[in-house]
Amino acid sequence: MRLAELSERSGVSTATIKYYLREGLLPPGRQVNATTAEYDEEHLRRLRLVRAMIQVGRVPVAKVREVLGHVDDDSLPRTIRLGAALWALPQVPEPDEEDEYVQAAHREVDALLDQLGWTNAKQLTTVSPAYRSLVVAVAAFRRIGYTFGTELLVPYAELMYRTATLDLDNMEAYPSQAERVEFAILGAVLNEPVLQALHRLAQEEETARRYGFE
Amino acid sequence: MRLAELSERSGVSTATIKYYLREGLLPPGRQVNATTAEYDEEHLRRLRLVRAMIQVGRVPVAKVREVLGHVDDDSLPRTIRLGAALWALPQVPEPDEEDEYVQAAHREVDALLDQLGWTNAKQLTTVSPAYRSLVVAVAAFRRIGYTFGTELLVPYAELMYRTATLDLDNMEAYPSQAERVEFAILGAVLNEPVLQALHRLAQEEETARRYGFE
Repeated sequence: MRLAELSERSGVSTATIKYYLREGLLPPGRQVNATTAEYDEEHLRRLRLVRAMIQVGRVPVAKVREVLGHVDDDSLPRTIRLGAALWALPQVPEPDEEDEYVQAAHREVDALLDQLGWTNAKQLTTVSPAYRSLVVAVAAFRRIGYTFGTELLVPYAELMYRTATLDLDNMEAYPSQAERVEFAILGAVLNEPVLQALHRLAQEEETARRYGFE
Repeated sequence: MRLAELSERSGVSTATIKYYLREGLLPPGRQVNATTAEYDEEHLRRLRLVRAMIQVGRVPVAKVREVLGHVDDDSLPRTIRLGAALWALPQVPEPDEEDEYVQAAHREVDALLDQLGWTNAKQLTTVSPAYRSLVVAVAAFRRIGYTFGTELLVPYAELMYRTATLDLDNMEAYPSQAERVEFAILGAVLNEPVLQALHRLAQEEETARRYGFE
């Protein structure tokens, strides 16, 4: 398809597509003559992913380029390729390792992973942004005087494990490795608002079931 | 306890406590004489809640005052009191009802609620920010060319329902109504980062279980 059709089918203006091409977020089309290039379904798919990250996820252009670099790096093993792409997304602030609450939170999160038997996640604690996010969140609770032992977190962790299993099942429904990595990135950028909204709706449903509207 | 002790036990400076008192976020202490007031455990608890909303949740002071007004309003029925407090928290942008993707998302979310049998949540759709959040998130997916039918969302919704049941069970462990409403607000402000981090950790664990590190 030509640029005009790519624009129409994606809903992205030709000016924006040209900008993405210049920034290397979209691979160049196949040059037909000096002024015309052809684009295919893969361009359309990539354009949707770029748009999701920039317009919905508000990921900066330089980060998008970094994420896509990992998506396209065939030399990496599967788990690392997926992880590298996801970990390149913007993350929460880093924990302050000097802080006493952060240190206590580290111990608590480590104990939780042991109790859950998440031995793989335990191996990734030095590199995983997810681990650091959990430490930051647990430390924030501790700092304002709330400590929840691991026993409160275990049932939540188990439900999130089932959620992650669903995520991966859905990802595996895609035939190609490129599409799977793209789906995982979309999930990280877009799924969380969906899950959060479903969670709050479920709280409303259950609150009304327990207490009615009286 | 005196102001100095309240400050020490909460970790909030006396200047900040005085500011919260002036802004009406903390009820005045019991005046002992012209210059001294006594504070109790309830002040300490309220101070932690205010701090959680302002420092961790980045809720504006005027919103905090509005939320606390609902917490303290004994005249409201339980479900409404809880809802009013939660709904006063900052929310996602409102959906643009003229937008065709938003209209399609409304139909999809309504069909989802029917399929789930969430009849209470269905009754709240005109007032619930959670419903509007879900519509916004589903519309964002549609706008970039992804439509997931309700069959993809149903298993996620069911897991979120189990998560909400846990939330309410934990809330009911608190003896007083005031503490329960406070716990629900803390949950909305602080639980979500914990759940999100647990979800991502679970994805890492499950990815490594399925594909190893090769």
